Amino acid sequence: MGQLDVTMDKKKAGGPAPADLPRAIAASAKAVDATLEAVLPRPHGPQGRVQEAMRYATFAGGKRLRPFLVLHSARLFGVDDSHALRAGAAIEVLHTYSLVHDDLPCMDDDDLRRGRPTTHIAFDEMTAVLAGDALLTIAFEILADEKTHPDPAVRIALVARLAEASGHDGMIGGQVIDMIATQQFGADDIVNLQRLKTGQLFEFSCEAGPILGKASAEDCARLRAYAREMGVVFQITDDLLDVTSTAEKTGKAVGKDAEMGKATLVTLLGVDGARAEAQRRAQAAIAALGPYAARSPELSGLPLFLLDRES
Amino acid sequence: MGQLDVTMDKKKAGGPAPADLPRAIAASAKAVDATLEAVLPRPHGPQGRVQEAMRYATFAGGKRLRPFLVLHSARLFGVDDSHALRAGAAIEVLHTYSLVHDDLPCMDDDDLRRGRPTTHIAFDEMTAVLAGDALLTIAFEILADEKTHPDPAVRIALVARLAEASGHDGMIGGQVIDMIATQQFGADDIVNLQRLKTGQLFEFSCEAGPILGKASAEDCARLRAYAREMGVVFQITDDLLDVTSTAEKTGKAVGKDAEMGKATLVTLLGVDGARAEAQRRAQAAIAALGPYAARSPELSGLPLFLLDRES
Repeated sequence: MGQLDVTMDKKKAGGPAPADLPRAIAASAKAVDATLEAVLPRPHGPQGRVQEAMRYATFAGGKRLRPFLVLHSARLFGVDDSHALRAGAAIEVLHTYSLVHDDLPCMDDDDLRRGRPTTHIAFDEMTAVLAGDALLTIAFEILADEKTHPDPAVRIALVARLAEASGHDGMIGGQVIDMIATQQFGADDIVNLQRLKTGQLFEFSCEAGPILGKASAEDCARLRAYAREMGVVFQITDDLLDVTSTAEKTGKAVGKDAEMGKATLVTLLGVDGARAEAQRRAQAAIAALGPYAARSPELSGLPLFLLDRES
Repeated sequence: MGQLDVTMDKKKAGGPAPADLPRAIAASAKAVDATLEAVLPRPHGPQGRVQEAMRYATFAGGKRLRPFLVLHSARLFGVDDSHALRAGAAIEVLHTYSLVHDDLPCMDDDDLRRGRPTTHIAFDEMTAVLAGDALLTIAFEILADEKTHPDPAVRIALVARLAEASGHDGMIGGQVIDMIATQQFGADDIVNLQRLKTGQLFEFSCEAGPILGKASAEDCARLRAYAREMGVVFQITDDLLDVTSTAEKTGKAVGKDAEMGKATLVTLLGVDGARAEAQRRAQAAIAALGPYAARSPELSGLPLFLLDRES
């Protein structure tokens, strides 16, 4: 299938300047949404309610940042967009499951997400637990399908990496630590927590490209290092928004960190200190890309773009 | 590695007669438990609590019936026991996750399982949700590891089949239907519900052998048909125990179906009618094995063994 309509920007402008990132992100999100539409089940039969909830949670107007990373890390290695978009859909449904379960009353107990009732509010708690379970399961089903890549060795490498990134020593481990996090946490504790809770899925997203492209271990390491630094930028800006933004702009409750007595790099370094740290990390992310920085304005532009985000 | 100590019975007796099934099941369970011990994480770091809960839920003295099916379906096709036991461990942790989530207050709200406090009682609700998520995730991680089979095409086939069996149109679908099941359900509704809720994991267990052994589609279909009939036997005997047994023997609350107004084949056909149906299904299961019935006394003996079980 080659490269889809998300490449149109590139053809016109010879690679978007950083200013084109909103457009590149929107184009990628549109293509990912079409893939999600195709891979998620249409509600049918008596189990339709959980399938409806899977779709409700997934189609909530997100920026699809993780699939964007998959798509552009994949293009660096000549991967067909149709393959990258399926890997992107897998990471997006896995990310969605984590939000559905995080929002449950026994976890963060959130009623609002992206300006809409959370899944257990719109449906019920039981359906939210099962829809989350089903989204986690279908992530692996998407990766295992030969439409994601003709080579079974590539598909199983994606499965292994995603399971590791999202498991007990990855995202779930980070979630556990987050639940016991206190204001006594120092900068290293916080960076470790966030590297697990949100960073691991970013790392998978950026490594999916070189895995799909059968790139060298060195290139995998480059993209992983980029993701690691970029993940810190993302998290700091998320924490900054929690302090400086309004619920109207972010579509979710703000000021929750302070309310829950949670330490973040922002509470620890202050707004200016945290912003400076994010700036350093953004430069480190671009540097980590090495020769690929120039070849992907989307990846090299993203960290600075995140620094300026308002939602 | 070849066949492990679980084969010792066979060497001595040239294949156990049906009367040896308790011993064969115990030997298989012991080998599976050793594999589970090796693949589950040892609690470490601040995320140790969820890893402890993963182990608590898994090591609860079950019969390990699903891994038993994997092991003996695999032996029919010359599969190394070390591979079968890893696939068996994967299905067992997936089964365990489903129990942990089913027991949650927002689902079946059970405090007791196999005579012990359920995971959300022994730990807390948040830890139970996350431990279930982590068990589901590690099931795929176990299958994806090359120790499960050297051929990536075999490993990805196991991943695809397990995701399908356990997903929104499989086990989770069955769980949703079970939650809305009423006494208006007819025999076909009940069989369909149970084929999804419990039957799909039995089908995966019996197909894992031919998949690991790269057997023909015809042999896969034989084992799947066996599993389907055997699953009905298992479910009817489970429902019979709910009516006729005591909590002391089964280690969980009994009489729950009647209390919750749920139709089962036992409420529909009566105890004698249900037992007769189970007997017919047991014969059908053995017939489905065709030439393999004589070659696996364990598989051909199991349906009749289940009919006589007391827990």
